[in-house]
Amino acid sequence: MNYQPVDAAVVPRFAGVSTFMRLPLVADAAGLDIALFGIPWDGGTTNRAGARHGPREVRSQSSLMRRVHHVSGIEPFSLARIADVGDLSVNPIDLQDGMARIEAGVGAIVEAGAIPLGIGGDHLTTLPVLRAVARRRPVGLIHFDAHSDTNDTYFGNNPYTHGTPFRRAVEEGLVDPKRTIQIGIRGSIYDPGEHDWARAQGIRVLYMEEFVSRGPVEVMAEARRIVGEGATYVSFDIDSIDPSMAPGTGTPEIGGFSTREAQQMVRLLEGVDIVGADVVEVSPPFDVAGLTALAGATMAFELVCVIARAVAARRGPAGAAAMA
Amino acid sequence: MNYQPVDAAVVPRFAGVSTFMRLPLVADAAGLDIALFGIPWDGGTTNRAGARHGPREVRSQSSLMRRVHHVSGIEPFSLARIADVGDLSVNPIDLQDGMARIEAGVGAIVEAGAIPLGIGGDHLTTLPVLRAVARRRPVGLIHFDAHSDTNDTYFGNNPYTHGTPFRRAVEEGLVDPKRTIQIGIRGSIYDPGEHDWARAQGIRVLYMEEFVSRGPVEVMAEARRIVGEGATYVSFDIDSIDPSMAPGTGTPEIGGFSTREAQQMVRLLEGVDIVGADVVEVSPPFDVAGLTALAGATMAFELVCVIARAVAARRGPAGAAAMA
Amino acid sequence: MNYQPVDAAVVPRFAGVSTFMRLPLVADAAGLDIALFGIPWDGGTTNRAGARHGPREVRSQSSLMRRVHHVSGIEPFSLARIADVGDLSVNPIDLQDGMARIEAGVGAIVEAGAIPLGIGGDHLTTLPVLRAVARRRPVGLIHFDAHSDTNDTYFGNNPYTHGTPFRRAVEEGLVDPKRTIQIGIRGSIYDPGEHDWARAQGIRVLYMEEFVSRGPVEVMAEARRIVGEGATYVSFDIDSIDPSMAPGTGTPEIGGFSTREAQQMVRLLEGVDIVGADVVEVSPPFDVAGLTALAGATMAFELVCVIARAVAARRGPAGAAAMA
Amino acid sequence: MNYQPVDAAVVPRFAGVSTFMRLPLVADAAGLDIALFGIPWDGGTTNRAGARHGPREVRSQSSLMRRVHHVSGIEPFSLARIADVGDLSVNPIDLQDGMARIEAGVGAIVEAGAIPLGIGGDHLTTLPVLRAVARRRPVGLIHFDAHSDTNDTYFGNNPYTHGTPFRRAVEEGLVDPKRTIQIGIRGSIYDPGEHDWARAQGIRVLYMEEFVSRGPVEVMAEARRIVGEGATYVSFDIDSIDPSMAPGTGTPEIGGFSTREAQQMVRLLEGVDIVGADVVEVSPPFDVAGLTALAGATMAFELVCVIARAVAARRGPAGAAAMA
Amino acid sequence: MNYQPVDAAVVPRFAGVSTFMRLPLVADAAGLDIALFGIPWDGGTTNRAGARHGPREVRSQSSLMRRVHHVSGIEPFSLARIADVGDLSVNPIDLQDGMARIEAGVGAIVEAGAIPLGIGGDHLTTLPVLRAVARRRPVGLIHFDAHSDTNDTYFGNNPYTHGTPFRRAVEEGLVDPKRTIQIGIRGSIYDPGEHDWARAQGIRVLYMEEFVSRGPVEVMAEARRIVGEGATYVSFDIDSIDPSMAPGTGTPEIGGFSTREAQQMVRLLEGVDIVGADVVEVSPPFDVAGLTALAGATMAFELVCVIARAVAARRGPAGAAAMA
Amino acid sequence: MNYQPVDAAVVPRFAGVSTFMRLPLVADAAGLDIALFGIPWDGGTTNRAGARHGPREVRSQSSLMRRVHHVSGIEPFSLARIADVGDLSVNPIDLQDGMARIEAGVGAIVEAGAIPLGIGGDHLTTLPVLRAVARRRPVGLIHFDAHSDTNDTYFGNNPYTHGTPFRRAVEEGLVDPKRTIQIGIRGSIYDPGEHDWARAQGIRVLYMEEFVSRGPVEVMAEARRIVGEGATYVSFDIDSIDPSMAPGTGTPEIGGFSTREAQQMVRLLEGVDIVGADVVEVSPPFDVAGLTALAGATMAFELVCVIARAVAARRGPAGAAAMA
Repeated sequence: MNYQPVDAAVVPRFAGVSTFMRLPLVADAAGLDIALFGIPWDGGTTNRAGARHGPREVRSQSSLMRRVHHVSGIEPFSLARIADVGDLSVNPIDLQDGMARIEAGVGAIVEAGAIPLGIGGDHLTTLPVLRAVARRRPVGLIHFDAHSDTNDTYFGNNPYTHGTPFRRAVEEGLVDPKRTIQIGIRGSIYDPGEHDWARAQGIRVLYMEEFVSRGPVEVMAEARRIVGEGATYVSFDIDSIDPSMAPGTGTPEIGGFSTREAQQMVRLLEGVDIVGADVVEVSPPFDVAGLTALAGATMAFELVCVIARAVAARRGPAGAAAMA
Repeated sequence: MNYQPVDAAVVPRFAGVSTFMRLPLVADAAGLDIALFGIPWDGGTTNRAGARHGPREVRSQSSLMRRVHHVSGIEPFSLARIADVGDLSVNPIDLQDGMARIEAGVGAIVEAGAIPLGIGGDHLTTLPVLRAVARRRPVGLIHFDAHSDTNDTYFGNNPYTHGTPFRRAVEEGLVDPKRTIQIGIRGSIYDPGEHDWARAQGIRVLYMEEFVSRGPVEVMAEARRIVGEGATYVSFDIDSIDPSMAPGTGTPEIGGFSTREAQQMVRLLEGVDIVGADVVEVSPPFDVAGLTALAGATMAFELVCVIARAVAARRGPAGAAAMA
Repeated sequence: MNYQPVDAAVVPRFAGVSTFMRLPLVADAAGLDIALFGIPWDGGTTNRAGARHGPREVRSQSSLMRRVHHVSGIEPFSLARIADVGDLSVNPIDLQDGMARIEAGVGAIVEAGAIPLGIGGDHLTTLPVLRAVARRRPVGLIHFDAHSDTNDTYFGNNPYTHGTPFRRAVEEGLVDPKRTIQIGIRGSIYDPGEHDWARAQGIRVLYMEEFVSRGPVEVMAEARRIVGEGATYVSFDIDSIDPSMAPGTGTPEIGGFSTREAQQMVRLLEGVDIVGADVVEVSPPFDVAGLTALAGATMAFELVCVIARAVAARRGPAGAAAMA
Repeated sequence: MNYQPVDAAVVPRFAGVSTFMRLPLVADAAGLDIALFGIPWDGGTTNRAGARHGPREVRSQSSLMRRVHHVSGIEPFSLARIADVGDLSVNPIDLQDGMARIEAGVGAIVEAGAIPLGIGGDHLTTLPVLRAVARRRPVGLIHFDAHSDTNDTYFGNNPYTHGTPFRRAVEEGLVDPKRTIQIGIRGSIYDPGEHDWARAQGIRVLYMEEFVSRGPVEVMAEARRIVGEGATYVSFDIDSIDPSMAPGTGTPEIGGFSTREAQQMVRLLEGVDIVGADVVEVSPPFDVAGLTALAGATMAFELVCVIARAVAARRGPAGAAAMA
Repeated sequence: MNYQPVDAAVVPRFAGVSTFMRLPLVADAAGLDIALFGIPWDGGTTNRAGARHGPREVRSQSSLMRRVHHVSGIEPFSLARIADVGDLSVNPIDLQDGMARIEAGVGAIVEAGAIPLGIGGDHLTTLPVLRAVARRRPVGLIHFDAHSDTNDTYFGNNPYTHGTPFRRAVEEGLVDPKRTIQIGIRGSIYDPGEHDWARAQGIRVLYMEEFVSRGPVEVMAEARRIVGEGATYVSFDIDSIDPSMAPGTGTPEIGGFSTREAQQMVRLLEGVDIVGADVVEVSPPFDVAGLTALAGATMAFELVCVIARAVAARRGPAGAAAMA
Repeated sequence: MNYQPVDAAVVPRFAGVSTFMRLPLVADAAGLDIALFGIPWDGGTTNRAGARHGPREVRSQSSLMRRVHHVSGIEPFSLARIADVGDLSVNPIDLQDGMARIEAGVGAIVEAGAIPLGIGGDHLTTLPVLRAVARRRPVGLIHFDAHSDTNDTYFGNNPYTHGTPFRRAVEEGLVDPKRTIQIGIRGSIYDPGEHDWARAQGIRVLYMEEFVSRGPVEVMAEARRIVGEGATYVSFDIDSIDPSMAPGTGTPEIGGFSTREAQQMVRLLEGVDIVGADVVEVSPPFDVAGLTALAGATMAFELVCVIARAVAARRGPAGAAAMA
C-alpha cells in the first residue's frame, strides 16, 4: 500500500473526504509504523465540553499539511508507514465504559506494533491511552500544558476528570514521575499546594515564567535529560498554546506558548524514544476560524516528523530499502 | 420582599448581575409561588454538548423581558411571588450523581410549595425533575419537541440519555402516557417503529406536518383535552423551534415551529394545571447572536405568565390582597 | 448626470467603493428626486448600541440590489433621479448636538426638493428627521416596529431616547396621531398602560397578533385609509422583522414579521404620498452573516421602488421625457 | 456490501470520518442505485465564492440524518443501494477544464447505471452534470431557486457563470424548456426582460409571490404536470430557501422558502422520473452555525427518499428480495 | 462574612450566577478592603461603542479565575476582604449625568474605606473615578494603553470623550503629571504634536517601541520610580494588549503587548501604593471567543493579587489574625 | 486638490463612505505621487477563495488610520499626493482576462507617474502588477510571505496560480532574482526541492526560523543590501503574519511574524527605491473581528509612510513648497 497523502497539486485541499493529513484511511494498524487516530471523547471535562468534536475538525484543517518539513527536511511519509486508522470507539455518556473503550482501541494499535498518535478528546483520554501504552513498564512523560492535571478529585470524590489524569497515571504506575516534566504550567491555582503532590513524586513542574526566561532550547535540553533514553510518551495539550492562537479549548489561560515556541520544542524532541503521543483539548465549538484545529494539526505534523525519523533510524538502511 | 424585576428605565438592561428576568436572586424557594432555576447539566447528551451553559446565557438574554404581557395583559410579577433561586447543584462527570442532585434540588422547591420552572440543561434533566414533581402521582405531559425522546438505550444498553427520558418517565410511573401529548415531532428516525412504543403506551405523537395543517388553536385544544384537569408538566425543548430561530441546540432539525407559533401555543395553555415546567436544550456554544437564549428566555416568560395567572386564580381575591 | 447603479455584469458586486445600491455618490441633493443618505448615529440607544455602524454595512450589502423590481416591474432608477448623498454629520457624544445636525442635514435635502430616504442609525434619529420633514405641516405616519416607541422618559426624566421619538413627535406637532398607524407591535411591556397614551392620541396600535390573523393585504388597506391622501412618512424599524431574519438590532423581539411579509407590506404602500422614509436600527456589531444589513438594504430598495413610481406619476409623461 | 449508514446509537454522530449520511465511501458507482457525490467547485461564481467547500460541510452536517423518513416511512437505504462515491475531480483555476472534469465524473456514474445526486458546488456545476445526464435525450427540469440563472453573458461575453447554466443547457439541447419549471424566483433583476428569454423558450417561471398565494401542493401538482412522465432532473439551489435558514450562499435574497415548504415540495416529487438531482450553492465560508449545510444535507435526504422509492418501485418485489 | 470564591471543584464554573471571580455579591463596600465593581458605560466612545457590556462578560469569563497566584503564591481572598459590589449606576444617554453617577458610586466605595477596582466601560469612566479617588490630593498614574488619551476636544469642542480623560484629569488636578507614566503608546496619530501636551505637563509617554527594546523589568522599574511612594492609580486599557489577544475593544492597534508581557508588568507593580485601579475598554460586541473578556478578567486578577498583598502588608500580622 | 484624510475629530470613523485611509476617491492617478487601489480578484487561489473581498474590508478597517506615524513622525499625506483611485477592473471567471485587466489598470497608474500601492486580491495579482511596473527593466523584490510562491504548475500544468507568480515573474524577466529576498518562509512543503529552483535563480529564501534567530534589524539590513539602490517592488502577503493576528487568509501557517515584527521590518525599508508595493491575501470571509483587514490596512499605512518619505526626498525642498 502507498501511504502517501493526496497531492494538493492534483486534488485541491478542499476536495475529498477529510482524513488526517490526507493520508489513507485504513481499517486497523496492522503494518503501520505510526497510527494516527481520533479520540472523540470529552467525558472528563469539568467546564466547557466540546473536545469530542476535535478529531473531525483537526482532520479538516490538517488538509493544509504537506509532505516535507521545511526546516528539518524530514519526509515522514517516506520514512515510515503512516495512516489514519479512524476514530476509537467511545461512549459519551458513561465515563468508565468510555475509558475502557479507549484503552482497548489503543491496545490494539500497540499490539499491532504501531506507535499511537492520538488526536483528542479531552485530557482524561490520556489516562486510558497510557494504560495501553505502558502495560509492560512505566513510561517517561513530556507534558506540554497550562495545567499540571494532577489534582485529586472533583465534585465529591470523583477521581477521573481532565484535571486528574497524571495523578492517576502515577498512582497506577503508568508514568515514572522521576522521568516526567510538565512544561508551560501557568494560571491561577486552587490551592497553594496544588503542585506539591506532583513535585513530591519527583515530577519536574516547569512554569511558563521559567520557560520565558530560559527559552525553548535550554528547557528542551532539560526535558531530554529527564526522560533519558527510556520509552517516553509526549502529551501536548493545546491549551499550552496562548488562547489567541488556540482559543478553541476548554480551559484557556492567557500568557501561553506562541505556536512558534511550541513548534521549536517539538522539533527538539529528536532523540527521545517516543512510544506514543497525543494532541488533546482541541474543542471546535469554542474555536474561531479553525485556528485551534490548525494549530493542533500542525503540532501533530511536527510530532509525526520527529517520530518518523526515529522509526527510520531504528529500521536502518535495510529497512529503508524495504519501505521503497 | 418585593419580587419585582429591576426597572430598565432606571437601570439599563446591560447593567447589573444577570438573573432570570432581572428578578431577585434568593437562597431558596420558601415563600415563592414560582421558582425559576437553572439546571446547568448536559450529562445525557449523545452528540453536541453545551446545554450546561444554557442557564447563564438565558439569564443574560432574559434581561430583555419586561413586566407585562402585551397580549394577555398578564402582569406575572404582581400576580405571583416569583424569583430566581439560582442553579441546581450538578455533577458534570457522573450521570447518576448528576440526576440525583437535580432530583434533590427540585424536590426542595416542590416541598417549599413553589412551582418549579427550570431552565436546562439537556432533556435528560427532565427525568429527575419529574421524579421530584411526580413523587405522589403521575402527571400529564405537554411536550414540545422535534424528537419523541422515547428511545430505549444507546451505546450498549445505556438507559439514560437525552433521547430516552420520557420512556423512563413512563416506565417509572412519573408520567401518565394517556395524558401525554408530544407536539412538533419531526426529522428522520432510526427505525420505522421508533414512535410505536410511545403510541402503544397511549402517548399522542403529533408530527410537525399535522401541526402545520391543523394550526396552533386546534392542536392546543387537543392538548388541553388530553391532559384534562389533572396536574400537568410542560416541557419545552428549544429544538422544537426552527434552527434558524434557535440554532444553539444539540440536535437541530429543519422545518420547526416559528417562534410566533410557539408563543401562541404556550398562551393557549391557559386553564391547564401546570405543576412544573422547563425550557431545555439551549446550547450557547452553538448559538449565534444569542438567538436561542433569547427564544428560551421569551418562552420561559410566556410560561411564567400563564402559570402566574393560574396561581392568582387559585389564590383568589383574598390572596391577591395579601400579595399587595 | 446618469443616476444608474454600477452594472454587476461589468463590475462584480464585490468591487468598487460601496454606495447605496451602487448608485453615484453626490455632494448634495440638488436635482435629485430621492436622496439616499446614512444617519450613523445611535445616541438614543438605551441598551445595545451599534446602529451607528448601520449605513456602512447597509451600503455594502446593498451591492446585491439590481435595477428592476421583479414583481411590480418598477425600474426606480429610470423613473426618478436617485443618488447616495453620503452620511449626515453627526455627533456621537452629544445627544442634542447630534439631533440638531441630523435635522439640519435632512433640512437641506428637503429644501433641495428631494424626498429623504435615511438609513439609520437608531430610532431616535427619526425625531430630528421629522423636524425637518414636517416643518410646515404635521405628517401622517406608517410605522413598522416591534415597539411603539412612545414611552415618556428614561433614566431620570431624559425625554430623548430611541424609546420615545414618536411621543415627542406628536407633542411637537410633527406627526398627526390620527393619521398614524404602528404595525407589528409585540413583546412584553413595562406597564399595562404603556400603549394607552398612544391610543389616547388616536394612534392605531396594531399588534403582531392582529397582523397574523388579518394578513398583510387587509392591514395595509387599513394603513392606507388611516394616512389618507396627505403627506406621509414611513418609518421601518428593522426589529419589526423577526430576529432570525434580522438579528443585528438593539432590541430584538421574537415572533416578528417574516421578510416576505415585510416586503409585501411595503409594496402595498402604493398610492401613499410618501414625503420621507427611513430604515433604522440595523446594528452590525450584533448582526450575523450580514443578514440584517441585507434585509435593511432590500427594504430600502422596496421603498425606493414605491416612491419612485409616485415621483414618476407626479411628474407625468412630460417629466418622464425630461428624465430620458 | 452493506450500504447502511453508521448507527448513531453505536458510534456517536461526532465520531468517525464524515461521509454523506454516514454511508460507506466507495471507489466508484458500480452496483449502486444512487450515487452521492460532491462537486467541490465554484468556478462560475460571479460574487461570493465558497461553494467549493460545500461538500465537506454537508458531509459533516449530514451526520444528523437517520435511516427512516418520519412522514413517508421511506427507508431509503433498504430500498436502494446508496453510497458516497467521494468528490469529483475538479480544477479550481480553469473553468473549461473544471467543467470537463465534472462532466466526465458524472458520466462515469451514469454509465455505471446509478442515479447521480450531486452536492455542489455553485450552480454552473449543473451544466456539465446535465451534459452527462442528458447525453441521449433532453431532460425535464424542476428547478428550485431564487434566480432563473438564464442570463446570457457576464464580464464581457463570458457565457459560463453560475448565472447562465440553464440558458446554456437549453441552447445545448440538454433540457427541454417546455418540460421545465423554475420555482421560487424572486429578488430584483437586472433588466425588465430578464425572464423573457426563459419564458420565450417555454420555461415556466414561477415567482415566489405566486408560490406564496398558491401553496406547495398546487405548485407541485403543476410541476409534475409540466415534467410529465419523462426523464427529469431536479436542481435545488439552496438560495431558494430564505437567507435566515440558509445564510451560507453566494447570492442571498430575502423572502425565500421556509425549509418546511422546501421539504414539502420535495416530498411531492413522488412519481416524477428523477434521473439526476443536485443540491447546490451551499457556501460554508458565509454560513453560520452550520445552518446552510444542515439544510442542504436534509434536502439531499429528502431527495434520496423520493428517488429510492422510485428505484424500488421500478425494481419490483423480485428486486427487493435481491436487495435483502 | 466569608469572602471566598465559589469552589469550582464543588460547583462547576458554568453553574451559578456570574459575579467577578465568583466572589460574593454584596450591597455595598462596607467592610471591604477591595471592592470590585462594574462600570457599564461607554458614553465617551467616539467610534465603536460596546464597552457598556464589558462588566457582564468579564464577570462571566472571570469564572475561570482560581484562588492562588501560581507565581507569587499570593492568596488574595485570604489576604484581604474582597467582593463584587455590583455595577455602578449609569446613564447611557446623558454624558454629564453618567459621569456624575460614576463619581458618586466610586465616592461611596472610597468613603467606605475600600480600594475601588473598576471594570469598564470606556476610558472616559476613569475621569469620574479619579474625581472620586483623588478628592483630597492628586494621585500618581500608571497607565497602560495604546493611546495617550490626552487629546483636547472632539466633534466641535466637546471636551469629554474616551480620547481626553487624562488631559481633563491633569487640568482638574486629579492626576499629578510628573508622577504619571503611559506605557505601550502606539499607532498613528492625528497630529505631530499630539503627545507634546502630555510631555509638556511632565507625563512620561513610553512608546511600545521603547518597551520592546527595554523590556518589562526595566520599564516597570522606571514606572515605580516615577510614581514613587505616593498614592497611585493604575489604569489598564485592554487595547494596550495586541488585538489578536484582545480583539473586543473600540480602538484596536496592532503591535500591542502580549498578555504575557502585560501580566509581568502588573506583577511588577509590587510596592506601589495603589489607591484605585481599573480595567477598561473591553467591548464584548467586538470580541471573539471571549478572549478579551478573559484577558480583562485575568488582568483584574493580577491587580487584585498585587493590591491584596499591599493591603495585608499595611494591616500587619495583627490584622491578618483578625481576617482569619 | 486637498489630499488629506477625513478628520476623525470632525467626522467619526464610522461615518461616510469608506475609502483607503479616508482619503479622497479620485477617478485616476493623474497628479498623484502614490496611488492606492484595490485588486478585488482571487482567480489564482487554489484552496480558500475570498481575497476578492479584501479591498472592501481593508477600506473599512483603514478608517482607523490617522495622519502621522508616531515613531518616525512621517506625515505621509503632507509629504506626497496620495489618494484612493478605486478598484481595478477585474474578471472573476476568466483568469487570463483577469490578469490582462490588472496589468492594464496598473499600467495606467504607472504611466501617470504615480507609485502603485495595491490592496489584493490573491498573490497571483502581483504577476500582472509586475508586468506593468517592470515594463522597462526588471525590479528587485522584497517579498514577505509564509510561502515562496515559486512553484511551477498545478492541476495538470496550469502555470498561473497564487502559488506560482514569482516563478513566472522571474521567467518573464520582471524580477531580478539576484535582487530578490523572500522573508518569513515557513510551513511544510510539497517536495524537498521545492525551494531549490528559487535558490538556483539566486533568490535569497529566508526561513522564519532564521528570522527568529537573527531579528528584524539584521534581516532587513540584508534585504537592503540585496536589493541595493535599484528599483524595487515590495510585496507583503498577509499570511506572513501569524494566523492569530491575520486569520483571514487563504493559506494560513502557524508560527508567523507578529505584527510588531512586521511593522518594524517595513519601517526598515527606508532608503529602498520602492517603485510599487502591495498587500495581498486578505480574505474577509475567513477573517474574525476584522483583525486581518486591520493588519492589512496598517501594513499599507506603514508602506505609505516609507514611500512618502522617499517621494519627498526625491522632490526636495522646492517640491515640498509646491505641495504646500
